[in-house]
Amino acid sequence: MGFRKGFSASAILAALLWCAPAAAGLREDVEAWRTAHEGAVVAQLDELVRLKSVAADPAGLNSTAAKLKSLLEARGFRTTLFTASGAPPVVYGLYDVGAKRTVVFYAHYDGQPVTPSQWSGDPFVPVMRDGSPGARNIDWKTVQGRFNPDWRFHGRAAADDKAAIVALLAGFDALKAAGRKPGVNIKLVWEGEEEKGSPHLADMMKAHAADLRADLWLIGDGPLHQSRTPTLYFGARGSMSLEATIYGPVRALHDGHYGNWAPNPAAMAAQLIAQMRAPDGAILIPGFADDARALTPAERTAIARLPKVEDSLRREFGIGGGESAEGLTLSTMRPALNIRGLRSGQVGAEAANAIPVEAAISIDFRLVPGQTPQGVRRKVETFLKAKGWTLVADTPDAAMRAATTRLIRLSWGGGYPALRSDMTSPAAKAAIAAASGKSPVTVLPMMGASVPIYLFDDIFHVPVIGLPITNHDNNQHAANENIRLGNLWDGIATYAAMMGSLDW
Amino acid sequence: MGFRKGFSASAILAALLWCAPAAAGLREDVEAWRTAHEGAVVAQLDELVRLKSVAADPAGLNSTAAKLKSLLEARGFRTTLFTASGAPPVVYGLYDVGAKRTVVFYAHYDGQPVTPSQWSGDPFVPVMRDGSPGARNIDWKTVQGRFNPDWRFHGRAAADDKAAIVALLAGFDALKAAGRKPGVNIKLVWEGEEEKGSPHLADMMKAHAADLRADLWLIGDGPLHQSRTPTLYFGARGSMSLEATIYGPVRALHDGHYGNWAPNPAAMAAQLIAQMRAPDGAILIPGFADDARALTPAERTAIARLPKVEDSLRREFGIGGGESAEGLTLSTMRPALNIRGLRSGQVGAEAANAIPVEAAISIDFRLVPGQTPQGVRRKVETFLKAKGWTLVADTPDAAMRAATTRLIRLSWGGGYPALRSDMTSPAAKAAIAAASGKSPVTVLPMMGASVPIYLFDDIFHVPVIGLPITNHDNNQHAANENIRLGNLWDGIATYAAMMGSLDW
Repeated sequence: MGFRKGFSASAILAALLWCAPAAAGLREDVEAWRTAHEGAVVAQLDELVRLKSVAADPAGLNSTAAKLKSLLEARGFRTTLFTASGAPPVVYGLYDVGAKRTVVFYAHYDGQPVTPSQWSGDPFVPVMRDGSPGARNIDWKTVQGRFNPDWRFHGRAAADDKAAIVALLAGFDALKAAGRKPGVNIKLVWEGEEEKGSPHLADMMKAHAADLRADLWLIGDGPLHQSRTPTLYFGARGSMSLEATIYGPVRALHDGHYGNWAPNPAAMAAQLIAQMRAPDGAILIPGFADDARALTPAERTAIARLPKVEDSLRREFGIGGGESAEGLTLSTMRPALNIRGLRSGQVGAEAANAIPVEAAISIDFRLVPGQTPQGVRRKVETFLKAKGWTLVADTPDAAMRAATTRLIRLSWGGGYPALRSDMTSPAAKAAIAAASGKSPVTVLPMMGASVPIYLFDDIFHVPVIGLPITNHDNNQHAANENIRLGNLWDGIATYAAMMGSLDW
Repeated sequence: MGFRKGFSASAILAALLWCAPAAAGLREDVEAWRTAHEGAVVAQLDELVRLKSVAADPAGLNSTAAKLKSLLEARGFRTTLFTASGAPPVVYGLYDVGAKRTVVFYAHYDGQPVTPSQWSGDPFVPVMRDGSPGARNIDWKTVQGRFNPDWRFHGRAAADDKAAIVALLAGFDALKAAGRKPGVNIKLVWEGEEEKGSPHLADMMKAHAADLRADLWLIGDGPLHQSRTPTLYFGARGSMSLEATIYGPVRALHDGHYGNWAPNPAAMAAQLIAQMRAPDGAILIPGFADDARALTPAERTAIARLPKVEDSLRREFGIGGGESAEGLTLSTMRPALNIRGLRSGQVGAEAANAIPVEAAISIDFRLVPGQTPQGVRRKVETFLKAKGWTLVADTPDAAMRAATTRLIRLSWGGGYPALRSDMTSPAAKAAIAAASGKSPVTVLPMMGASVPIYLFDDIFHVPVIGLPITNHDNNQHAANENIRLGNLWDGIATYAAMMGSLDW
């Protein structure tokens, strides 16, 4: 297509397609377009969810990338598929309007693996349901008029992260329909292995660094603030995982004959966890948080301004209280040591009066700026050694076990650092202004969850801001993943505002 | 048969069958008989193991009881099957020689449930194996001459507890072959639901209290001391189990977004265990051991005289050291809180970055004399309440969960108290003397494991002594249960001594 001919040609062509000024009345125009196209927007999401873009299905990833490429080309984008050996393609798109600023919109088209037995239906045959606890199915294709914004559209990757892609496309279409020209040059990076930890992304971005030159990265991933207000986040915690195995006797021992003498690995695991983590989540490993960068006064102020959601979340989650009294967001600004799982012996009907042979602890750490995966590993290992543990990386043999009193096998997962970027840069201020509609946008200095956005900062040294749109209760990474329609509508407005009225 | 005619008639008949005096040379006679009958003894055990006497197979239990009855009748015992609704029969046998003293020999013919997939072969098709780590199968039926005492005979209930029954029968036959009359009147109680916790035994014993009048109970169950020396035990710890469930959020929450704020039940479980149990096994629940009766000086002396086995057990079990420095037996004289199992979230490849919805802890307590199950329960529950826990017996609903900060469901299993009986009674001294052969018998004041021998004390108020014969490493309650032939040979000698030379 003509869009492939060259940068300036396409910029000129694109510019010709738009005429209205980019600012006033934009939100109203976009809302009017959206209310008239709700069925078409959902149909677009439906089409994308049906493409099985999960790691287990490389063909599904490829066909999704091809589909996205064609959707962009139909809208006048120049597109390229960035490829690397063993990686699904990165869909790159460019819509150059000759503006002063260029913004890269990142999203991912791959979804989490599925366990179909846990789903109400086929994860790749989407269904609309009302938001009630009884969750009634709705035949949305036959619905006349507007959709209820509390309806949920269910399917793998519907929320994480295809909703972001659909919101961008719809926002783009809405601007175009209103004759509004984007205020920035638009670049797109839609990757296909985020749920695998983006193992090739850094190298692919470095290889295409010239194409990816920009003034701002907007990361279209993650959930909105729980208040359902439009949200920008200026960072994300890092992540690191650890599987630890503590060894007891080489065979399960009758605990009547040997208990209180032969070491019980389940009890040792419990002791170790209690030594590492206080009831309020504080990490007791000496020096663990020494490198953690404190929140700035501006970041503290932003957190203090967040809508209060704790009471409604307590009801939603069925919990009587929090681990600490500081509230949700401040809790998630700290480094974290989360116990993901414990396994030792047997419980319930299968329990035998035995000392288990081993205990497994699954941990994930959340890192804050200043911490590194290497530093976390060093501190944990130093702590364990100081407590008398012998550390091994492989399964020990019986001789090793017999020669060692406190033996632990550590298997570290990949990790990456956190990012908390400047909330006061001109680009940040412009994004906050553009995203604020009738009410100010919710500004989160750092998301508690981890996304490797430090990468964009590391490679490109330009502002990086998170632009989430999905509901917090989207069952992300679980069965029955869903996007709430009201969030998708707000997401379209936010994407349109970012494309149409960003100005700095 | 004539043996059914009456007590005195059978006593007279039995007395006529024997002629030699009961004391000198007995061990040599029994050993001579046994060396000539090793194949026949193993064949008897083989026949009994092939009868599937497990709770899941009531017909197998009944046919085993019938077989045992016929084996006793063939030896001149009067027999009765004590029955109760829903219970397998208790095989009762009487061999009255008109002696001054009457001894009841208890054993059980039921075995633990089996998980066939965990066995090397069919649990009810016994195999002989040598004791080496490579465990070679031996076609024992074709072996000429003596068997290696380190060979192991594998099959469900081979050790626990059919070996005790076979040892008694063989010991009886050996005495008879040597023309040695029993020194005591022999009563047998062989029950068929010990592995289910003997739920009907107390009532059945009370219903037949007149038949069971005796001067001593010998409990043929449990393993020998690990030194493989003949052993008597004068008590056993009591037992009580608890399944506890700690509740987190009603659905697994992304721990990046909610960790350190939403309670993590796995971490709470670890904290709770660490609060209840010290690394040396000491129970930290206030007042837990207040009622525990201390060891007497005589009991301490007996323990100090036990062969030292810790070093060899450490090698055998692949453990570098004990939980406490006091040695194996003293460790098992204390009350115990054993963690049998832990379950929360997922570990390894299945681990997700989530806060689990609940954590399960499986505990079994070991009680010492002075403690009661009711007292243990009260102290645990008082402790939990003092720590701020809300205790429930049923699965709580979401509203209950949302209204409660520390919610724990307790499911108590059945329990029974301990017994530590008098090691200095005339009957005890006689048993010690009779069981001592070339070297003194190993005297254990209390077995660390639990068997409900308090029952015999409670109902009959006569001395109760444990008479174990099986090897400690018999895989009791696990797959590949086995009896070491040398232990079976020693067991025959011990049973013969108890029948032939007990005198007080």
